[in-house]
Amino acid sequence: MTNRLDAIPDILLMGPGPSAVHPDVYRALARPTLGHLDPAFIALMDDTKGLLQQVMRTRNHVTFPVSGTGSAGMEAAFANLVEPGDRVLVLVNGFFGQRMTDVAARLGAVVETVAFDWGTPVVPDVVKPKLAGPPYKVVAMVHAETSTGVANPVADVGALVKPAGALFVVDGVTSLGGMPVEVDGWGIDAFYSCSQKGLSCPPGLAPFSLSDRAVARLLARKTKVASWYLDASLLVNYWEGAKRAYHHTAPINMIYGLYQALLNVMTEGLDAVFARHRDVHRQLVAGLEKMGLELLVRPECRLPMLNAIKVPAGVDEARVRGRLLTEHKIEIGAGLGPLAGKVWRVGIMGHAARAENVERFLAALKAVL
Amino acid sequence: MTNRLDAIPDILLMGPGPSAVHPDVYRALARPTLGHLDPAFIALMDDTKGLLQQVMRTRNHVTFPVSGTGSAGMEAAFANLVEPGDRVLVLVNGFFGQRMTDVAARLGAVVETVAFDWGTPVVPDVVKPKLAGPPYKVVAMVHAETSTGVANPVADVGALVKPAGALFVVDGVTSLGGMPVEVDGWGIDAFYSCSQKGLSCPPGLAPFSLSDRAVARLLARKTKVASWYLDASLLVNYWEGAKRAYHHTAPINMIYGLYQALLNVMTEGLDAVFARHRDVHRQLVAGLEKMGLELLVRPECRLPMLNAIKVPAGVDEARVRGRLLTEHKIEIGAGLGPLAGKVWRVGIMGHAARAENVERFLAALKAVL
Repeated sequence: MTNRLDAIPDILLMGPGPSAVHPDVYRALARPTLGHLDPAFIALMDDTKGLLQQVMRTRNHVTFPVSGTGSAGMEAAFANLVEPGDRVLVLVNGFFGQRMTDVAARLGAVVETVAFDWGTPVVPDVVKPKLAGPPYKVVAMVHAETSTGVANPVADVGALVKPAGALFVVDGVTSLGGMPVEVDGWGIDAFYSCSQKGLSCPPGLAPFSLSDRAVARLLARKTKVASWYLDASLLVNYWEGAKRAYHHTAPINMIYGLYQALLNVMTEGLDAVFARHRDVHRQLVAGLEKMGLELLVRPECRLPMLNAIKVPAGVDEARVRGRLLTEHKIEIGAGLGPLAGKVWRVGIMGHAARAENVERFLAALKAVL
Repeated sequence: MTNRLDAIPDILLMGPGPSAVHPDVYRALARPTLGHLDPAFIALMDDTKGLLQQVMRTRNHVTFPVSGTGSAGMEAAFANLVEPGDRVLVLVNGFFGQRMTDVAARLGAVVETVAFDWGTPVVPDVVKPKLAGPPYKVVAMVHAETSTGVANPVADVGALVKPAGALFVVDGVTSLGGMPVEVDGWGIDAFYSCSQKGLSCPPGLAPFSLSDRAVARLLARKTKVASWYLDASLLVNYWEGAKRAYHHTAPINMIYGLYQALLNVMTEGLDAVFARHRDVHRQLVAGLEKMGLELLVRPECRLPMLNAIKVPAGVDEARVRGRLLTEHKIEIGAGLGPLAGKVWRVGIMGHAARAENVERFLAALKAVL
């Protein structure tokens, strides 16, 4: 039989994720598999948890990677904190805020939304009056909206949510490892991310953290968490304590990869990592402007690592992406939802966020246009 | 910072899983990550699906790996097929049958069980009268009970379930890739397994398949699937068709590994793989009997790949496992639930199922005892 893996090309990943993977993360993935209760693996779990706490800036003891992709992290947040009939407020300004409403409603939440135009940020002053009414169990928002490239003001919203008594759920799928995230400092009660963007590990794990307040609400539930697989009150018995209770078999080699990716980030240092992302973002924007291209989002609320570029009139956007991929071995992303056909999404995330990659992309885009 | 990965030992995995991984699966994991919509990756998805259909012996078009471990597969089966209030019958003769009852009940099922002693198989004649009463939406059982080493008569139960009008859910976590599995031939409506046992890939994916009958019931649900992440009616739009609709970012490199593992199985041939497992099982049993050790399960319903050995009186079972691990670099498993402290669980699965490994284990066990 032919082996399809022999035909896998080497592509520079500059879409909305996955991002380029560091060679030592690939090497980590290929380390010998251990049993999920092996003392050497448990030591690695402890170190992985410690690194996650550093990158998330939290002291939450319930901090571990969920055994699924970032979307499993979203589901874990709502599944653990929401019971049927609970009131949930979701701040929506893009595809992933919208997804939160679907995830929460399926779990029986009574979902309300405050909506903002795609490409614009959440406005705390618009949210504030909603929080003065009947109390919500959960208020949820996306930090870095991957569908539009908007950075949302999580700290400012967090300052409103805590006095209102709600639990604050934040999606950090695209922010973690690319820009400052302050889980404790911003009053976040449930935070989740992914492995394949700022952290530059392949997809497959969802870094996850619950505040003590969230854990107390979890333990006081009247109903069991609907998802046995994602029940954090069970998972924590495997991720900490003297007796590691078997729950499910952890994705051992993926955790090797995540550990290495986190170690890379902390070795470089969070401030240096964030500065690198900002620098290449400025380089990208300058290059695009020189070509006469415009970004969707106004400068003061742009994400460094996800750049939505308006497709110029008369340009076949899919053809441009196709030629970048086949002729230049560069992947960029298409628009999602109402932005389909209207923007390209260019990621400069993690290991991909380097000056030479931005140069290569700009030159390729120029050639194709 | 020291890198904890440098301290990962090379252990011969002969527990209940994960099993020893073939070197070319490690190489596959370390191939360059592609985007989840890259045409080269989509071609690999199609081939992975085709190989899964061959290994599962099914023509089900809804066949793909769930982006989670085997336990996520269990949850996917119940989450897709069960609505609140549905009657579910679970045949329980071990830890994983018991887990099914918890998973289904959390999803709102009204769960009934038929229980059999741990270490003995499900008896179809005992199940039969239960199926003559009020109809069940789902009847569920475990094919290869990983907690006891018992092979359950799936074909015989399947022949009873179909005429009763119920959907037949079968856990093939430990059976797939080690012994015959006939998803279509045995009338199975939802089947799930894992990557890390018979298939010898690291843990992280759950091969999954739904019959057309199950898909029809899924599409006719009155309520949405509670888990957005595991909703097969959404996932199928990413796994097949001309337009691959983004659902969640697939665990790309894990799918590389699973593809290679499936290719290894089909290159060797299913019959040869099963014969190899039977041969090393016989070799193991002969060696154990020579040492005066007994197996928990009577010969005619033993699994070839999971062998529960009774701990001899006066032996500190944990100390034996510890010494096998540290002195001989061999992992075996402990007993679960009521069998904790009473049995060792020795896996000879996938790439680990080789005569030299059984010899090495027998010699080490002899030395330690």
